[in-house]
Amino acid sequence: MAPTATQTATRRPRLPLNGVDTPTLFGTLDVVKAQPDLAKFQFRARNRWQNGTLSETAIGTFSGAGGEHAHKTAFTLTADHPAVLVGEDRAPLPIEYLLHALASCITGGIANIAAARGVTLTEVESRIEGDIDLLGIFGMSKGVRNGYQGIRVSFSIKGDAPPEKLQEIVEQSRARSAVFDVLTNGVPVSMSVNAG
Amino acid sequence: MAPTATQTATRRPRLPLNGVDTPTLFGTLDVVKAQPDLAKFQFRARNRWQNGTLSETAIGTFSGAGGEHAHKTAFTLTADHPAVLVGEDRAPLPIEYLLHALASCITGGIANIAAARGVTLTEVESRIEGDIDLLGIFGMSKGVRNGYQGIRVSFSIKGDAPPEKLQEIVEQSRARSAVFDVLTNGVPVSMSVNAG
Repeated sequence: MAPTATQTATRRPRLPLNGVDTPTLFGTLDVVKAQPDLAKFQFRARNRWQNGTLSETAIGTFSGAGGEHAHKTAFTLTADHPAVLVGEDRAPLPIEYLLHALASCITGGIANIAAARGVTLTEVESRIEGDIDLLGIFGMSKGVRNGYQGIRVSFSIKGDAPPEKLQEIVEQSRARSAVFDVLTNGVPVSMSVNAG
Repeated sequence: MAPTATQTATRRPRLPLNGVDTPTLFGTLDVVKAQPDLAKFQFRARNRWQNGTLSETAIGTFSGAGGEHAHKTAFTLTADHPAVLVGEDRAPLPIEYLLHALASCITGGIANIAAARGVTLTEVESRIEGDIDLLGIFGMSKGVRNGYQGIRVSFSIKGDAPPEKLQEIVEQSRARSAVFDVLTNGVPVSMSVNAG
Protein backbone atom coordinates (compact mmCIF):
# COMPACT_ATOMS: atom_id res chain seq x y z
CA MET A 1 0.00 0.00 0.00
CA ALA A 2 2.66 2.52 1.02
CA PRO A 3 4.61 2.44 -2.28
CA THR A 4 1.37 2.99 -4.23
CA ALA A 5 0.49 5.97 -2.03
CA THR A 6 3.93 7.49 -2.57
CA GLN A 7 3.77 7.01 -6.33
CA THR A 8 0.35 8.63 -6.45
CA ALA A 9 1.61 11.63 -4.47
CA THR A 10 4.56 12.04 -6.77
CA ARG A 11 2.40 11.98 -9.86
CA ARG A 12 -0.08 14.58 -8.59
CA PRO A 13 0.70 18.28 -8.84
CA ARG A 14 1.78 19.69 -5.48
CA LEU A 15 -1.08 22.10 -4.92
CA PRO A 16 -2.30 23.48 -1.59
CA LEU A 17 -4.72 20.96 -0.08
CA ASN A 18 -6.72 20.73 3.16
CA GLY A 19 -5.62 24.30 3.89
CA VAL A 20 -2.00 23.08 3.86
CA ASP A 21 0.44 25.03 1.67
CA THR A 22 1.89 21.87 0.16
CA PRO A 23 4.37 23.56 -2.25
CA THR A 24 5.94 25.51 0.64
CA LEU A 25 5.92 22.35 2.80
CA PHE A 26 7.91 20.42 0.20
CA GLY A 27 10.16 23.43 -0.38
CA THR A 28 10.89 23.64 3.35
CA LEU A 29 11.77 19.95 3.50
CA ASP A 30 14.17 20.40 0.58
CA VAL A 31 15.88 23.32 2.31
CA VAL A 32 16.27 21.34 5.57
CA LYS A 33 17.65 18.37 3.67
CA ALA A 34 20.42 20.61 2.36
CA GLN A 35 21.04 22.32 5.76
CA PRO A 36 20.15 19.86 8.56
CA ASP A 37 21.07 22.38 11.30
CA LEU A 38 17.95 24.36 10.40
CA ALA A 39 15.91 21.53 11.99
CA LYS A 40 17.09 22.37 15.52
CA PHE A 41 14.28 24.13 17.43
CA GLN A 42 13.72 25.30 20.97
CA PHE A 43 10.25 25.98 22.37
CA ARG A 44 9.64 27.99 25.53
CA ALA A 45 6.98 28.96 28.00
CA ARG A 46 6.81 31.15 31.07
CA ASN A 47 4.33 30.31 33.82
CA ARG A 48 3.15 32.54 36.66
CA TRP A 49 1.06 31.44 39.63
CA GLN A 50 -2.15 33.47 40.08
CA ASN A 51 -3.97 32.17 43.17
CA GLY A 52 -5.28 28.86 44.42
CA THR A 53 -4.29 26.27 41.83
CA LEU A 54 -4.70 28.72 38.92
CA SER A 55 -1.62 29.61 36.90
CA GLU A 56 -1.05 31.33 33.60
CA THR A 57 1.47 30.52 30.89
CA ALA A 58 2.79 32.94 28.29
CA ILE A 59 4.02 31.50 25.01
CA GLY A 60 5.70 34.01 22.74
CA THR A 61 9.04 33.17 21.17
CA PHE A 62 10.94 30.15 19.95
CA SER A 63 14.09 29.48 18.00
CA GLY A 64 14.58 27.32 14.96
CA ALA A 65 15.41 27.34 11.25
CA GLY A 66 18.59 29.18 12.15
CA GLY A 67 17.00 32.10 14.00
CA GLU A 68 14.64 33.54 16.59
CA HIS A 69 10.90 33.71 15.97
CA ALA A 70 7.89 35.28 17.62
CA HIS A 71 4.40 33.81 17.27
CA LYS A 72 2.05 36.04 15.26
CA THR A 73 0.30 36.77 18.56
CA ALA A 74 1.48 36.00 22.11
CA PHE A 75 -0.58 33.13 23.51
CA THR A 76 -1.83 32.91 27.09
CA LEU A 77 -2.86 29.57 28.57
CA THR A 78 -4.33 28.88 31.99
CA ALA A 79 -4.71 25.76 34.13
CA ASP A 80 -6.62 25.05 37.33
CA HIS A 81 -8.02 22.17 39.38
CA PRO A 82 -11.74 21.30 39.33
CA ALA A 83 -14.05 21.70 42.35
CA VAL A 84 -13.97 17.98 43.19
CA LEU A 85 -10.20 18.38 43.59
CA VAL A 86 -10.68 21.52 45.70
CA GLY A 87 -9.92 23.98 42.90
CA GLU A 88 -12.08 26.69 41.38
CA ASP A 89 -12.32 25.08 37.95
CA ARG A 90 -11.40 28.23 36.04
CA ALA A 91 -9.41 26.32 33.38
CA PRO A 92 -8.62 22.76 32.27
CA LEU A 93 -6.38 20.61 34.46
CA PRO A 94 -2.69 20.35 33.52
CA ILE A 95 -3.11 16.65 32.70
CA GLU A 96 -6.08 17.41 30.44
CA TYR A 97 -3.70 19.56 28.39
CA LEU A 98 -1.66 16.40 27.69
CA LEU A 99 -4.71 14.88 25.97
CA HIS A 100 -5.16 18.01 23.85
CA ALA A 101 -1.46 18.04 22.98
CA LEU A 102 -1.54 14.42 21.81
CA ALA A 103 -4.75 14.65 19.76
CA SER A 104 -3.80 17.96 18.13
CA CYS A 105 -0.25 16.79 17.31
CA ILE A 106 -1.44 13.70 15.46
CA THR A 107 -4.25 15.67 13.77
CA GLY A 108 -1.93 18.43 12.51
CA GLY A 109 0.34 15.71 11.12
CA ILE A 110 -2.60 14.00 9.42
CA ALA A 111 -3.46 17.24 7.60
CA ASN A 112 0.13 17.68 6.38
CA ILE A 113 0.61 14.05 5.35
CA ALA A 114 -2.76 13.85 3.58
CA ALA A 115 -1.94 17.01 1.63
CA ALA A 116 1.49 15.65 0.72
CA ARG A 117 -0.15 12.46 -0.56
CA GLY A 118 -2.79 14.32 -2.54
CA VAL A 119 -5.69 13.25 -0.30
CA THR A 120 -8.50 15.69 0.41
CA LEU A 121 -9.84 15.28 3.93
CA THR A 122 -13.43 15.98 4.90
CA GLU A 123 -13.31 15.05 8.59
CA VAL A 124 -10.77 14.15 11.25
CA GLU A 125 -12.07 13.62 14.76
CA SER A 126 -10.56 11.97 17.78
CA ARG A 127 -11.65 11.03 21.25
CA ILE A 128 -9.03 10.57 23.87
CA GLU A 129 -9.17 9.47 27.47
CA GLY A 130 -6.67 8.85 30.23
CA ASP A 131 -7.04 6.86 33.44
CA ILE A 132 -5.37 8.05 36.60
CA ASP A 133 -5.51 6.83 40.18
CA LEU A 134 -4.94 9.81 42.46
CA LEU A 135 -3.75 7.58 45.31
CA GLY A 136 -0.32 8.10 43.74
CA ILE A 137 -0.42 11.90 43.89
CA PHE A 138 -1.97 11.80 47.35
CA GLY A 139 0.95 9.65 48.54
CA MET A 140 -1.44 6.99 49.81
CA SER A 141 -0.11 4.03 47.84
CA LYS A 142 3.50 3.44 46.87
CA GLY A 143 2.46 1.03 44.11
CA VAL A 144 0.42 3.65 42.26
CA ARG A 145 2.15 6.03 39.85
CA ASN A 146 1.42 9.77 39.87
CA GLY A 147 0.48 10.06 36.22
CA TYR A 148 -1.88 8.41 33.77
CA GLN A 149 -1.81 4.62 33.83
CA GLY A 150 -2.94 4.48 30.22
CA ILE A 151 -4.24 6.69 27.43
CA ARG A 152 -6.62 5.59 24.66
CA VAL A 153 -7.13 7.49 21.42
CA SER A 154 -9.71 6.71 18.76
CA PHE A 155 -9.54 8.50 15.42
CA SER A 156 -12.29 8.88 12.87
CA ILE A 157 -11.11 10.05 9.42
CA LYS A 158 -12.93 10.70 6.15
CA GLY A 159 -11.64 11.83 2.77
CA ASP A 160 -11.36 11.05 -0.95
CA ALA A 161 -9.17 7.96 -0.53
CA PRO A 162 -9.83 4.30 0.29
CA PRO A 163 -10.07 3.42 4.02
CA GLU A 164 -6.67 1.68 3.89
CA LYS A 165 -4.97 4.79 2.59
CA LEU A 166 -6.67 7.00 5.21
CA GLN A 167 -5.56 4.57 7.91
CA GLU A 168 -1.99 4.72 6.61
CA ILE A 169 -2.05 8.51 6.91
CA VAL A 170 -3.13 8.32 10.56
CA GLU A 171 -0.51 5.66 11.26
CA GLN A 172 2.24 7.71 9.57
CA SER A 173 1.26 10.76 11.62
CA ARG A 174 1.37 8.75 14.84
CA ALA A 175 4.77 7.36 13.87
CA ARG A 176 6.11 10.91 13.36
CA SER A 177 4.31 12.65 16.24
CA ALA A 178 6.53 14.59 18.64
CA VAL A 179 3.93 14.44 21.43
CA PHE A 180 3.28 10.71 20.94
CA ASP A 181 7.03 10.10 21.23
CA VAL A 182 7.38 12.19 24.39
CA LEU A 183 4.31 10.65 26.07
CA THR A 184 5.14 7.05 25.25
CA ASN A 185 8.94 7.15 25.62
CA GLY A 186 9.44 9.91 28.16
CA VAL A 187 11.98 12.72 28.07
CA PRO A 188 14.70 13.86 30.51
CA VAL A 189 13.49 16.86 32.52
CA SER A 190 15.95 18.88 34.60
CA MET A 191 14.74 21.35 37.19
CA SER A 192 16.32 24.16 39.17
CA VAL A 193 14.83 26.26 41.97
CA ASN A 194 15.61 29.80 43.04
CA ALA A 195 13.94 30.30 46.45
CA GLY A 196 13.74 33.25 48.80
CA MET B 1 14.42 19.84 57.49
CA ALA B 2 11.44 17.81 56.34
CA PRO B 3 10.35 16.60 59.84
CA THR B 4 10.48 20.18 61.16
CA ALA B 5 8.35 21.39 58.31
CA THR B 6 5.76 18.68 58.97
CA GLN B 7 5.61 19.45 62.67
CA THR B 8 5.12 23.13 61.97
CA ALA B 9 2.28 22.40 59.56
CA THR B 10 0.53 20.14 62.07
CA ARG B 11 0.63 22.79 64.76
CA ARG B 12 -0.83 25.54 62.62
CA PRO B 13 -4.58 25.95 62.19
CA ARG B 14 -5.81 24.65 58.84
CA LEU B 15 -7.10 27.87 57.35
CA PRO B 16 -7.53 28.70 53.67
CA LEU B 17 -4.20 30.01 52.35
CA ASN B 18 -2.86 31.14 48.96
CA GLY B 19 -6.44 30.93 47.68
CA VAL B 20 -6.43 27.20 48.51
CA ASP B 21 -9.36 25.91 50.59
CA THR B 22 -7.08 23.98 52.92
CA PRO B 23 -9.80 22.63 55.29
CA THR B 24 -11.68 21.10 52.34
CA LEU B 25 -8.37 19.80 50.91
CA PHE B 26 -7.58 17.93 54.14
CA GLY B 27 -11.21 16.76 54.42
CA THR B 28 -11.05 15.37 50.88
CA LEU B 29 -7.82 13.49 51.64
CA ASP B 30 -9.45 11.96 54.75
CA VAL B 31 -12.45 10.79 52.71
CA VAL B 32 -10.20 9.21 50.05
CA LYS B 33 -8.12 7.49 52.74
CA ALA B 34 -11.29 5.77 53.94
CA GLN B 35 -12.54 4.95 50.40
CA PRO B 36 -9.53 4.53 48.06
CA ASP B 37 -11.75 3.78 45.04
CA LEU B 38 -12.78 7.44 45.01
CA ALA B 39 -9.26 8.24 43.77
CA LYS B 40 -9.86 6.62 40.36
CA PHE B 41 -10.35 9.34 37.73
CA GLN B 42 -10.72 9.44 33.97
CA PHE B 43 -10.06 12.60 31.95
CA ARG B 44 -11.28 13.07 28.38
CA ALA B 45 -10.99 15.29 25.37
CA ARG B 46 -12.49 15.42 21.92
CA ASN B 47 -10.53 16.94 19.06
CA ARG B 48 -11.79 18.06 15.67
CA TRP B 49 -9.67 19.10 12.71
CA GLN B 50 -10.53 22.55 11.35
CA ASN B 51 -8.27 23.26 8.34
CA GLY B 52 -4.54 23.31 7.63
CA THR B 53 -2.83 22.22 10.84
CA LEU B 54 -5.45 23.90 13.06
CA SER B 55 -7.55 21.68 15.30
CA GLU B 56 -9.86 22.33 18.22
CA THR B 57 -10.29 20.29 21.40
CA ALA B 58 -13.38 20.27 23.60
CA ILE B 59 -12.90 19.40 27.27
CA GLY B 60 -16.13 19.00 29.17
CA THR B 61 -16.62 15.97 31.39
CA PHE B 62 -14.55 13.62 33.50
CA SER B 63 -15.22 10.86 36.00
CA GLY B 64 -13.84 10.45 39.49
CA ALA B 65 -14.68 10.47 43.18
CA GLY B 66 -17.25 7.79 42.40
CA GLY B 67 -19.21 9.70 39.75
CA GLU B 68 -19.42 11.78 36.59
CA HIS B 69 -18.52 15.46 36.58
CA ALA B 70 -18.80 18.37 34.19
CA HIS B 71 -16.41 21.30 34.30
CA LYS B 72 -18.07 24.54 35.39
CA THR B 73 -17.71 25.68 31.79
CA ALA B 74 -16.80 23.63 28.71
CA PHE B 75 -13.24 24.49 27.65
CA THR B 76 -12.09 24.84 24.05
CA LEU B 77 -8.41 24.59 23.17
CA THR B 78 -6.77 25.06 19.79
CA ALA B 79 -3.41 24.11 18.33
CA ASP B 80 -1.66 25.02 15.09
CA HIS B 81 1.79 25.11 13.49
CA PRO B 82 3.75 28.37 13.14
CA ALA B 83 4.56 30.01 9.79
CA VAL B 84 8.15 28.74 9.76
CA LEU B 85 6.68 25.22 9.87
CA VAL B 86 4.20 26.08 7.11
CA GLY B 87 1.22 26.63 9.43
CA GLU B 88 -0.89 29.74 9.96
CA ASP B 89 0.17 30.26 13.60
CA ARG B 90 -3.39 30.64 14.92
CA ALA B 91 -2.61 28.82 18.20
CA PRO B 92 0.32 27.33 20.14
CA LEU B 93 2.00 24.19 18.83
CA PRO B 94 0.93 20.87 20.36
CA ILE B 95 4.41 20.40 21.88
CA GLU B 96 4.28 23.87 23.42
CA TYR B 97 1.21 22.66 25.32
CA LEU B 98 3.43 20.03 26.98
CA LEU B 99 5.54 22.82 28.48
CA HIS B 100 2.41 24.57 29.79
CA ALA B 101 1.10 21.29 31.23
CA LEU B 102 4.33 20.62 33.09
CA ALA B 103 4.80 24.12 34.52
CA SER B 104 1.15 24.48 35.56
CA CYS B 105 1.01 21.01 37.15
CA ILE B 106 4.00 21.65 39.39
CA THR B 107 2.76 25.18 40.16
CA GLY B 108 -0.75 24.03 41.19
CA GLY B 109 0.87 21.45 43.44
CA ILE B 110 3.13 24.09 44.97
CA ALA B 111 0.07 26.18 45.91
CA ASN B 112 -1.63 23.19 47.55
CA ILE B 113 1.46 21.94 49.40
CA ALA B 114 2.41 25.43 50.61
CA ALA B 115 -1.12 25.95 51.97
CA ALA B 116 -1.04 22.54 53.67
CA ARG B 117 2.27 23.47 55.31
CA GLY B 118 1.04 26.88 56.41
CA VAL B 119 3.28 28.83 54.02
CA THR B 120 1.97 32.00 52.39
CA LEU B 121 3.32 32.39 48.87
CA THR B 122 3.93 35.75 47.23
CA GLU B 123 5.34 34.60 43.89
CA VAL B 124 5.80 31.42 41.90
CA GLU B 125 7.24 31.75 38.42
CA SER B 126 8.81 29.25 36.09
CA ARG B 127 10.58 29.30 32.78
CA ILE B 128 10.58 26.14 30.76
CA GLU B 129 12.21 25.22 27.48
CA GLY B 130 12.44 22.12 25.34
CA ASP B 131 14.93 21.25 22.60
CA ILE B 132 13.79 19.34 19.57
CA ASP B 133 15.53 18.39 16.34
CA LEU B 134 12.91 18.20 13.60
CA LEU B 135 15.08 15.87 11.50
CA GLY B 136 13.27 13.12 13.44
CA ILE B 137 9.77 14.23 12.47
CA PHE B 138 10.88 14.92 8.91
CA GLY B 139 12.16 11.35 8.67
CA MET B 140 15.60 12.59 7.65
CA SER B 141 17.67 10.94 10.37
CA LYS B 142 16.98 7.60 12.00
CA GLY B 143 19.12 8.46 15.02
CA VAL B 144 17.00 11.51 15.92
CA ARG B 145 13.85 11.04 18.02
CA ASN B 146 10.57 12.77 17.10
CA GLY B 147 10.02 14.48 20.44
CA TYR B 148 11.92 16.76 22.76
CA GLN B 149 15.47 15.64 23.50
CA GLY B 150 15.40 17.41 26.84
CA ILE B 151 13.28 19.83 28.87
CA ARG B 152 14.64 22.34 31.41
CA VAL B 153 12.50 24.03 34.05
CA SER B 154 13.62 26.79 36.39
CA PHE B 155 11.38 27.84 39.26
CA SER B 156 11.48 31.06 41.22
CA ILE B 157 9.47 30.99 44.46
CA LYS B 158 8.92 33.58 47.22
CA GLY B 159 6.94 33.39 50.45
CA ASP B 160 7.01 33.70 54.24
CA ALA B 161 9.28 30.71 54.83
CA PRO B 162 13.06 30.16 54.70
CA PRO B 163 14.52 29.35 51.26
CA GLU B 164 15.10 25.69 52.28
CA LYS B 165 11.43 25.23 53.13
CA LEU B 166 10.31 26.88 49.89
CA GLN B 167 12.68 24.62 47.98
CA GLU B 168 11.23 21.57 49.74
CA ILE B 169 7.74 22.60 48.64
CA VAL B 170 8.82 22.79 44.98
CA GLU B 171 10.61 19.46 45.28
CA GLN B 172 7.57 17.79 46.90
CA SER B 173 5.32 19.13 44.13
CA ARG B 174 7.68 17.77 41.46
CA ALA B 175 7.77 14.42 43.23
CA ARG B 176 3.94 14.26 43.17
CA SER B 177 3.32 15.80 39.76
CA ALA B 178 1.18 13.76 37.37
CA VAL B 179 2.56 15.55 34.31
CA PHE B 180 6.19 15.26 35.47
CA ASP B 181 5.65 11.51 35.90
CA VAL B 182 4.07 11.09 32.45
CA LEU B 183 6.73 13.19 30.68
CA THR B 184 9.73 11.59 32.37
CA ASN B 185 8.50 7.99 32.58
CA GLY B 186 6.14 7.73 29.63
CA VAL B 187 2.70 6.15 29.50
CA PRO B 188 1.19 3.39 27.34
CA VAL B 189 -0.95 4.92 24.56
CA SER B 190 -3.28 2.73 22.52
CA MET B 191 -4.82 3.98 19.31
CA SER B 192 -7.64 2.87 17.04
CA VAL B 193 -8.71 4.27 13.68
CA ASN B 194 -12.10 4.28 12.01
CA ALA B 195 -11.53 5.25 8.36
CA GLY B 196 -13.85 5.83 5.42
